[in-house]
Amino acid sequence: MSHKAASHASCIPKIDEVNALEALHNFVKDDLNLVDKVIIREMTSQVPLIRDLAGYLIHAGGKRLRPMLTIACAQLAGYQGQRHIPLAACVEFIHTATLLHDDVIDESNLRRGIASANALWGNKASVLVGDFLFSRAFELIVADGSFEVLKILSEASSTIVEGEVLQLLTANNTATTETGYFNVIKAKTAQLFEAACHIGGVMAECTAYQKQALAAFGHNLGIVFQLIDDGLDYYGTESQLGKTPGDDFREGKVTLPVILAFTQGNADEKKFWERTLGQLDQTDQDLNLAIQYLKKYNVFSRIIEKAKSFSKRAKESLMVFPESSLRKLLLNVADFCVYRLS
Amino acid sequence: MSHKAASHASCIPKIDEVNALEALHNFVKDDLNLVDKVIIREMTSQVPLIRDLAGYLIHAGGKRLRPMLTIACAQLAGYQGQRHIPLAACVEFIHTATLLHDDVIDESNLRRGIASANALWGNKASVLVGDFLFSRAFELIVADGSFEVLKILSEASSTIVEGEVLQLLTANNTATTETGYFNVIKAKTAQLFEAACHIGGVMAECTAYQKQALAAFGHNLGIVFQLIDDGLDYYGTESQLGKTPGDDFREGKVTLPVILAFTQGNADEKKFWERTLGQLDQTDQDLNLAIQYLKKYNVFSRIIEKAKSFSKRAKESLMVFPESSLRKLLLNVADFCVYRLS
Repeated sequence: MSHKAASHASCIPKIDEVNALEALHNFVKDDLNLVDKVIIREMTSQVPLIRDLAGYLIHAGGKRLRPMLTIACAQLAGYQGQRHIPLAACVEFIHTATLLHDDVIDESNLRRGIASANALWGNKASVLVGDFLFSRAFELIVADGSFEVLKILSEASSTIVEGEVLQLLTANNTATTETGYFNVIKAKTAQLFEAACHIGGVMAECTAYQKQALAAFGHNLGIVFQLIDDGLDYYGTESQLGKTPGDDFREGKVTLPVILAFTQGNADEKKFWERTLGQLDQTDQDLNLAIQYLKKYNVFSRIIEKAKSFSKRAKESLMVFPESSLRKLLLNVADFCVYRLS
Repeated sequence: MSHKAASHASCIPKIDEVNALEALHNFVKDDLNLVDKVIIREMTSQVPLIRDLAGYLIHAGGKRLRPMLTIACAQLAGYQGQRHIPLAACVEFIHTATLLHDDVIDESNLRRGIASANALWGNKASVLVGDFLFSRAFELIVADGSFEVLKILSEASSTIVEGEVLQLLTANNTATTETGYFNVIKAKTAQLFEAACHIGGVMAECTAYQKQALAAFGHNLGIVFQLIDDGLDYYGTESQLGKTPGDDFREGKVTLPVILAFTQGNADEKKFWERTLGQLDQTDQDLNLAIQYLKKYNVFSRIIEKAKSFSKRAKESLMVFPESSLRKLLLNVADFCVYRLS
């Protein structure tokens, strides 16, 4: 996008940061392949629909960011066993279940085109396969046999759902505050990042202080990730985002870019946001106009600054662990998550 | 309904059978009130939508059959503690979550009137509040601290979901077999009845033989319950059923009444079922015609016979426990569940 290079030339990422996720992926590749095997095995069901959707989800091939974090944090904390494989699969199951349920659409939304598992299988299948993943995850966590892990992941699941409900309530509400927004993303995104990292430390039986450090790393990284994701929705390309840009706008989600522009906007601009997001009354030109308003108030730079401060906190947490190539990779990931928008 | 008294006069239930559920309810009333308090406490959320739906669900006041079974089976097995209160609430949470998710509708179903929580809050809220209940249930089960209970309830949850998916696949499929139907109801209904009773024995730390007896009681009672429920959908009154009769027909569910009539039906009748359930092409008169076909093949009596045989198995299981007024109440419940249709 042309406005991108122009306005953020100073933030152009260095090569090692761009490839940070790829580098972490390579580092944990063998374990990640084992995680995929567990995912395939556990989604094997006598029910064809579940098998089909499992295949779709595996081959659609998300970034597997959360299971990568579980594997990496367990290793960073010195874990030597094999429990991290099924538990990383559980984290991915919980994540995928929330994605499927987030895809469920209300009658009022049916007119808009939505490309997702839902479009292929329908509401009901999305709900049920999400439920299947969620309950299968709990079976695996129970089989793992640690109450500490059970507590972390069951609490995370509850919190994620509260976050999703909160998000539902802020949709179409241009009065949503920055605090309200952060409450949503902490619950719906940061909590699972936090849990994914935290259980790595639990498996390694490291000190409470180190476990808290891993949890804090995950929490802050999750915030960075969602801040940038919400920025990219107005600003990114389809390949950066893994989905069509402008989805949040079309669905009337009130995310931080909008909150920042709305707060400073003049009366006409406030009317624009009310019409497009509050009432979902949109024309083809409105997304471009929205992006112009975001640029007018320097929204992207401001979000990058916020993301940098959470990224800094994430990186500081890891300093309780001794220097290692894995720690360096995780620090790079924290930087990279910011630079996706830069 | 007039055809009812005429065709099943010999099955008119005795008073103590009619009141069996009420009698059991009275027996466990104090504990059940404590269960309601746990439900209210655990659904307390900072998110108003969740509070509202909690209130709706509490006051809509289901029969609380499953938590009643948990309480009663724990007592029958000699349990003296208080763990059965939150665990009975968990069973109700899991049940309510599946109801909410079962309410989720596909685009194709939107034209039909559906009175449910979904009608009031929409698809997305039904999904998310169901998720909230489900994850809150797991938090409570984790807090209870028994891996045996965790295993039973997490496996039950997975099985219920597989049953719901199987049911989705049999919908509109008039080729569904009786075996296919039983696979669905064992998974979607009997499994939670089984788990509800089984955990009563686990809490009481009774013998493996007694635990299995309680599980078998719940399993067979669950089958009876669903067999009769599916019969009542064509044959009951709104107050017996707790929902509008004919819902299954309008939604194209292929339940045992239909399977029995379809199998024996002539070519015209098979065409009728294909049109009304397979293609969901229905007129106002079709439900009455469907009921006539069911009567032609004596479907209700045949379902009652099947239900009686499962009820008998349920009652036999309880014989491993010594005679008591509570055992008598549970035996009466097993009879009553059959007589609802008679």
